Amino acid sequence: MADVASLNKEVQEQSNLLKSLRTSNADANLIDEAKKRLGDLKKALGAATGTKDPKEGTKKKDRLLLKTPKGTRDYGPTEMFCREYVERIVKDCFTSHGGSCLDTPVFERKEILAGKYGEDAKLIFDLQDQGGEQLSLRYDHTVPLARYLAMTGLTNTSSKLWQVGKVYRRDNPVMSKGRMREFSQADFDIFGQWDPMIPESEVLSLLTSILTRLEVGEFTIKLNHRKILDGIFEVCGVPEEKTRPISSAVDKLDKLPWADVRLEMTVEKGLDPDVADKIGEYVKLKGGEELLTKLEEDSVLKNSARAQEGLKDMAILFRLLRIYKITEKISFDLSLARGLDYYTGLIYEAIVEGSAPPGFGTNPAVPPSQGTESAVVAPSKPAKKASSKSKAKSGDDEDEEIDESQVGVGSIAAGGRYDNLVGMFVAAASGDSKKVAGLPCIGVSIGLDRIFAILWPKWEGRGMRAKETMAYVISVGDGHLEQRIELVRELREAGIKADFYAKNKPKLPTQFEAGERDEVPFAILIGGEELTNGYVRVKEQRWQVVDGKKEKIQASGKGELVKRTELIEWLKQTETLRTWSSGKLV
Amino acid sequence: MADVASLNKEVQEQSNLLKSLRTSNADANLIDEAKKRLGDLKKALGAATGTKDPKEGTKKKDRLLLKTPKGTRDYGPTEMFCREYVERIVKDCFTSHGGSCLDTPVFERKEILAGKYGEDAKLIFDLQDQGGEQLSLRYDHTVPLARYLAMTGLTNTSSKLWQVGKVYRRDNPVMSKGRMREFSQADFDIFGQWDPMIPESEVLSLLTSILTRLEVGEFTIKLNHRKILDGIFEVCGVPEEKTRPISSAVDKLDKLPWADVRLEMTVEKGLDPDVADKIGEYVKLKGGEELLTKLEEDSVLKNSARAQEGLKDMAILFRLLRIYKITEKISFDLSLARGLDYYTGLIYEAIVEGSAPPGFGTNPAVPPSQGTESAVVAPSKPAKKASSKSKAKSGDDEDEEIDESQVGVGSIAAGGRYDNLVGMFVAAASGDSKKVAGLPCIGVSIGLDRIFAILWPKWEGRGMRAKETMAYVISVGDGHLEQRIELVRELREAGIKADFYAKNKPKLPTQFEAGERDEVPFAILIGGEELTNGYVRVKEQRWQVVDGKKEKIQASGKGELVKRTELIEWLKQTETLRTWSSGKLV
Repeated sequence: MADVASLNKEVQEQSNLLKSLRTSNADANLIDEAKKRLGDLKKALGAATGTKDPKEGTKKKDRLLLKTPKGTRDYGPTEMFCREYVERIVKDCFTSHGGSCLDTPVFERKEILAGKYGEDAKLIFDLQDQGGEQLSLRYDHTVPLARYLAMTGLTNTSSKLWQVGKVYRRDNPVMSKGRMREFSQADFDIFGQWDPMIPESEVLSLLTSILTRLEVGEFTIKLNHRKILDGIFEVCGVPEEKTRPISSAVDKLDKLPWADVRLEMTVEKGLDPDVADKIGEYVKLKGGEELLTKLEEDSVLKNSARAQEGLKDMAILFRLLRIYKITEKISFDLSLARGLDYYTGLIYEAIVEGSAPPGFGTNPAVPPSQGTESAVVAPSKPAKKASSKSKAKSGDDEDEEIDESQVGVGSIAAGGRYDNLVGMFVAAASGDSKKVAGLPCIGVSIGLDRIFAILWPKWEGRGMRAKETMAYVISVGDGHLEQRIELVRELREAGIKADFYAKNKPKLPTQFEAGERDEVPFAILIGGEELTNGYVRVKEQRWQVVDGKKEKIQASGKGELVKRTELIEWLKQTETLRTWSSGKLV
Repeated sequence: MADVASLNKEVQEQSNLLKSLRTSNADANLIDEAKKRLGDLKKALGAATGTKDPKEGTKKKDRLLLKTPKGTRDYGPTEMFCREYVERIVKDCFTSHGGSCLDTPVFERKEILAGKYGEDAKLIFDLQDQGGEQLSLRYDHTVPLARYLAMTGLTNTSSKLWQVGKVYRRDNPVMSKGRMREFSQADFDIFGQWDPMIPESEVLSLLTSILTRLEVGEFTIKLNHRKILDGIFEVCGVPEEKTRPISSAVDKLDKLPWADVRLEMTVEKGLDPDVADKIGEYVKLKGGEELLTKLEEDSVLKNSARAQEGLKDMAILFRLLRIYKITEKISFDLSLARGLDYYTGLIYEAIVEGSAPPGFGTNPAVPPSQGTESAVVAPSKPAKKASSKSKAKSGDDEDEEIDESQVGVGSIAAGGRYDNLVGMFVAAASGDSKKVAGLPCIGVSIGLDRIFAILWPKWEGRGMRAKETMAYVISVGDGHLEQRIELVRELREAGIKADFYAKNKPKLPTQFEAGERDEVPFAILIGGEELTNGYVRVKEQRWQVVDGKKEKIQASGKGELVKRTELIEWLKQTETLRTWSSGKLV
């Protein structure tokens, strides 16, 4: 065991080191060295498990490969403490904004997902046909929600639903940036007939609250409107049937220069170069309300009824966003197109400024948000591969070498209005394509793994704990198992999370070490004369990171003598426990 | 839309009605009538969607079947409010007992699951081979945990890990009893070298806390010890190679009479009838510590060293359980065997008394806990099918008619000590079967769907809300959209969950209705002279169930005038908000 386990651990540590070097933009030599060492360790591990050497075919078969599937990973205690925190904040904001929870199965009947994701359908995980239904793992939360709404006709109950859970895509993973094959998304959707742009501003206000409370760093929410975009295509002379392909090309402007996008439009998609140039003039525009004024005055756009509808929406939206006090987070960006066909109105995407890959800072107004071809926040191809179509063999399992340092976290949340999706399901179920009684919807998907990828280095830097245990009960001298269990039981019953060392007569230093490993703030000592007299000794301690290392701070010297019968009340009065009870993490 | 959706809704409502009739043991005629009506509705729905009539082959193909996969379901807002509550309590108990969280992927490499579940392996969901790894959905949390421990050699960090998540089994579902193909389990495991029975009593104390805090009703934790059981088989004369098959037969005693089990032993498994009868004398024993004394004095059992080891463990355990004050929940039951091979010491199973199916009450000491063949809480075959082996074609998708009223919820939690599972992984990975550096483990799995199945009728009876919204902001007169948004924004920022009606000029009754539908306790009215003078009017209301119907109770007549600037402080001082802040559900 020692060999494989300790090598595994070393690989993990080295991989973490490499990540933090990259995150902190360390010297290139240091990074190279760390990379080499990681490679060596991986080789050693391969040799130890006999799994990485294809020449030794027989040996390979004999041994079990201990790993998680490609693009997935385990999250251990410290990471889960952070992830649970993120989820708690997100859910709190969801319910603060009037949302109710929905939970759908992790797999759906295959035909439910069919025809919803365009060419990304190849990324869907299918279940094996074991007799019975054809099933697929869900690709996002939006399609299951639409299926649920079509099934229940839930127009008269809650109009705001949220879902938090994992979704699945057979894409090429970039693990350190939170681009996984199994990843967590938190969705919030508002449906029903409401007045223009009120649900839109509710969703944007929600997104702002979440990103602010999570302290992800400086962020921008890019906005655009499908009707304005389509109106631009119209007045520039894009034939109707080319509207969506040209829109897809525009969507790549966040990772490709205009020259490349223009080439795609003209050469690949056969657009008249003059038309492309006219589009180019529009889609480079970004800004705030002044851009809206400019577009409202644009005499060419006046010829498009669609564009005028979109502009009217945007004017209402900006007025509402001012009331919500979130205009400074907003960038009206005509290059934002979002890949999926089903958006019908406002579209948006949140970008964290600091999460761009190095070297991408040349045009700070255009952060690199890959992964916009999909409904929501997809774990898409890395930037450097974006233009090399021949290599984009998504879905295979060959290890492609991806230089993770060249990939940004990208967009951390995205969404838009999709007024026809539920209607599509209703029509398909009735067998009558004309019978589309739609249900207007708007939603946002938050990429929890990407948020985790951004928060985790900060969280580690602050040296956060992995547990909430508040009291560690320690025996001095004779073991006192019975007294320890009794005290722990009472503490737990009083809501004070407590633990003890599960041996009959553990040594004092061993118990202290165990409590300190979990950074338990209160060590409660029982034993000797004090125990006989009805007292316990309480030592308070806390930890902080000094120069990258954890240091213990003894808050109370030899500790305080507290009456055993008054201990629980005493603990509850401490600053530490009161802070913790108020929901703050210690 | 109207047709399918409203029929779907009717089917759901009728199905709920049928369930509550059964739960409340209503008159048989009433139940039959409700059953018939449900059948008619289902037929009507089938006709409307064109999916249930196999004669109309072409029509079937044209239409999309709007449903979740077999054995899975959606959980809507009210149900999720209850499920989230259950999860919160469970997690709180887990962290109270010193646990740290672990999260593993929903699928594993197929070879990781291979050879762990005996004949239940046929219930594993496999993913389709899409090029690359062979994957399967996880069957429980125990095997992924063991794989994680073998990979990381995590012997020096936290020794208590918990996981909450969905697991998957292609079994025949009984939905109303929480026996699903996709179901939620909450696991807690303790690993490492500790003194005898201390981890065991920690786990039992944890389980008792959880079931008590969740108010599942009267429950019993049945205990047995693999070494005692194996010792009994030894002294009765069971050949070593028949130990596990005979143990499997004993395990069925909770759903089959002794005569049937004896038949399985002698006819099917070729055991000497005299040996079977000797076993029969032991396995009918159950009780508390007095049973332990009886067994300690048993002169025949003295001949088995294994049995004596087990009895020694049980003596220590009973002493510890007294300190934890949970002996009255415990039943030492020699008929408990648990199906899986990998248990090596104490085994246990929690049963809720009230959840037995009707007609099973003849022997109250033997509650019907189906589903003990699996590692943990399995969604196993219903009682009436238990003995008809020929029909047990698990894994197919033909609709078997199951009379749900004849099936109990069964065991809601189960587990035991498994000291060799991690070692198995380590040995398999090293390719050296002798190199078993094991890691002693003990754990419990809690079946969250079964707990939900028990709690849900009570929860519904109490008329619990589906949301936490505390304030609904309502305009009187002129719409006041800006003022409503401003107030909602401020309330949310202050941590008071708030909402409003997303229209520009909604009618007063419409707004009241919307707030009342969500049972929001505070209606905050803005408008007119009061608004001009800087005041709002606050109306408090609450709901309670009277004779099965929800009734609104107006707590404050025409409401109170509160200064707009003092509103948030005023609300925070109310009893309602203080109760809610303390974590209690309103």
